[in-house]
Amino acid sequence: MLSLVDLRSRLDSGALTPEAAIRLAQEAIAAREPEVGALVSRLAEPRVPGSGPLAGIAVGVKDIIDTADLPTEMGSGLYAGWRPKADAAIVMRLRALGAVPLAKTTTSPFASLDPTATRNPRAPGRTPGGSSAGSAAAVAAGMLPLALGTQTGGSVIHPAAFCGVAAIKPSFRLLPTVGVKTVSWALDTLGLFGAGIRDVAHALALLADRPAIDLGPDPGAPRIGLVTQDFAGAPEPAMAAALARAVRAAERAGARVSDLALPAPLPEAWAGHGIIQNYEARQALSWEYATHRSALSETLRGQLDRAQDLTAEAYDGARRHAHRARGVLKDLFGEVDALLTPSAPGPAPEGLAATGDPRFNRLWTLMGVPCVNVPVPGAGAPLGIQVVARFGDDGRALAVARLIEGALAAES
Amino acid sequence: MLSLVDLRSRLDSGALTPEAAIRLAQEAIAAREPEVGALVSRLAEPRVPGSGPLAGIAVGVKDIIDTADLPTEMGSGLYAGWRPKADAAIVMRLRALGAVPLAKTTTSPFASLDPTATRNPRAPGRTPGGSSAGSAAAVAAGMLPLALGTQTGGSVIHPAAFCGVAAIKPSFRLLPTVGVKTVSWALDTLGLFGAGIRDVAHALALLADRPAIDLGPDPGAPRIGLVTQDFAGAPEPAMAAALARAVRAAERAGARVSDLALPAPLPEAWAGHGIIQNYEARQALSWEYATHRSALSETLRGQLDRAQDLTAEAYDGARRHAHRARGVLKDLFGEVDALLTPSAPGPAPEGLAATGDPRFNRLWTLMGVPCVNVPVPGAGAPLGIQVVARFGDDGRALAVARLIEGALAAES
Repeated sequence: MLSLVDLRSRLDSGALTPEAAIRLAQEAIAAREPEVGALVSRLAEPRVPGSGPLAGIAVGVKDIIDTADLPTEMGSGLYAGWRPKADAAIVMRLRALGAVPLAKTTTSPFASLDPTATRNPRAPGRTPGGSSAGSAAAVAAGMLPLALGTQTGGSVIHPAAFCGVAAIKPSFRLLPTVGVKTVSWALDTLGLFGAGIRDVAHALALLADRPAIDLGPDPGAPRIGLVTQDFAGAPEPAMAAALARAVRAAERAGARVSDLALPAPLPEAWAGHGIIQNYEARQALSWEYATHRSALSETLRGQLDRAQDLTAEAYDGARRHAHRARGVLKDLFGEVDALLTPSAPGPAPEGLAATGDPRFNRLWTLMGVPCVNVPVPGAGAPLGIQVVARFGDDGRALAVARLIEGALAAES
Repeated sequence: MLSLVDLRSRLDSGALTPEAAIRLAQEAIAAREPEVGALVSRLAEPRVPGSGPLAGIAVGVKDIIDTADLPTEMGSGLYAGWRPKADAAIVMRLRALGAVPLAKTTTSPFASLDPTATRNPRAPGRTPGGSSAGSAAAVAAGMLPLALGTQTGGSVIHPAAFCGVAAIKPSFRLLPTVGVKTVSWALDTLGLFGAGIRDVAHALALLADRPAIDLGPDPGAPRIGLVTQDFAGAPEPAMAAALARAVRAAERAGARVSDLALPAPLPEAWAGHGIIQNYEARQALSWEYATHRSALSETLRGQLDRAQDLTAEAYDGARRHAHRARGVLKDLFGEVDALLTPSAPGPAPEGLAATGDPRFNRLWTLMGVPCVNVPVPGAGAPLGIQVVARFGDDGRALAVARLIEGALAAES
């Protein structure tokens, strides 16, 4: 994979020019893209800024994020060739830092559950996950050192786990969603994919203009709560084993790990995630549904069909549960520094017909707390566990994730 | 003015057809628009739904709200002729209810402080306010029974006060902002203008799909806190007199009114409104600023110039103040049912060079609480006071506003 931090180091030393760094990505794309199919469109001859803290960094932009110089097709024929007027705020931020938004990456239609044609570079014959399929796969295939995704259910963390790459879904609204197609305004969160934890930490600190995220608090001997999310069902045996390995690695690195059962109303909040998502999606996609229902992908159409019956009362109730649960979770973070929980039920499901189940991701998206996927090295299809920290404590989530990443690397 | 509820009553009795109701608006536009200049564009031959709870209601849509059948120009030459792909969620909701989004209304460029060319139908030679100038003026001139605006500082409530119409800025995100040009995602709120309180109450209940908003809680003998917002400076003598009249009217209607000084950190939160607004606007309008700075209107350009220096630390601090202030305000609503405070420092300023000062509106936008403008009848330029209620208690804000509106009408 292309590591952002490694590239920056070679750029800073003068061993690499920004133009040459972008060419590395272009050459990798030429070699791998025909097989992976992670990109919707790309700039043939991008303008490469000569300076800036992300100069030389080629970035993949999920195709529900507006770009003025490339079409934004939302993963749907409805938006074939659509040209927004302006770049999304996050794309402008990338440009201001000297990065090159080089390519648009595949997405499930309107960031839904329907699959893309993208292949999983690390697990042939298995889905790369979704909805940020192209961003996860492009980083996993070594085509790009950084890619943007969005998560409404689990669309950043679970494709990262399936493709074996690092990713962060930051605190809600730490990164601006202006110019990102809305599915659910209470949930949609921009996230980052990179080769390793330090890569996404460095990128997030720059994009959010909060340097402390990168330095991170020294995790010391962090208190970690092990959360199985029983309310969401059991993980597969392979995931249970990966989680156990991550726990042992964390303990070897000095962490104190203890079981933590999430109290009420956290399970109730989890159960209401879909109500909030679908009640808002019904409004956010009302033009598409009312005027082009038959052109929508099958799962999304069904989801919106069912959403027509949701009541404001059910929605308000789910929001109240979520509001109370955020308070309870905040208090829990007085007792532990971070939580450790599966990124997905198991490895990527076989085939390309489905993108996998976001049931272990939904609660954290709804709580708005930072989540970091840490790949767990091993034979077979990739597995990932996620580190979760308190709202606004993205630096700590990354620092604990890096501790575990390092301890896992040391054993393998 | 065209009253939505009166029109609905004539429609329901069969005295008026939806087509004829829309024609009433079109005829009023033909008569008044050349003098007022409230509209940017309009449909010549709209399709008029024959049924639906808002059938026959012509609606003005602020021109930062996306429409697929009319350009969306953001009040700026940068977006001249711009055609979004889809209708905004709120426009689709209007259509689903049978309403006709008939015209786009003038807006300050990107909902900023710069004036429009729109005239104040109720106060010749004075600004109609902004940024939702056209929506307030179109309703005031009797051209439309309902219009949509947005408020980030005071852009719904103060133009309503200046033009002598009823308006509500509902609880934050009660109405969906998907497809509305973002200035500040923490503040931008859709609002409604109508001839009287019952008109905006009826429209809001339908648009938000919460019938209880329209019936409202019986206000009984509401406890009202009189809030002078001294931290925002003193009102003009005419406004102080209007507020006193509103207090006497409320008391005659049975309300118990007592002075209420807002405790810390509410004044501190008010002081941080501009930091939040401008830090977010810098990101939300980053494409416009980076690529077309010289084409921006003067006040907005200066505002964004200054915003470049704002730090994430200042922004996070302002958000923390706001978060704590929301908790304190929620507790205050255990002691009173509603607050009464000026909608603006005084009547509309003379001339068209400025849109007026939103200093009495900013706190409530930041708190996300419902605010209703109640016109105070009298000689001279219009004045308005606002009724504020607890977050989510839009029905109560409207019920108390209607009580005061009725008591004021009885005396004049």
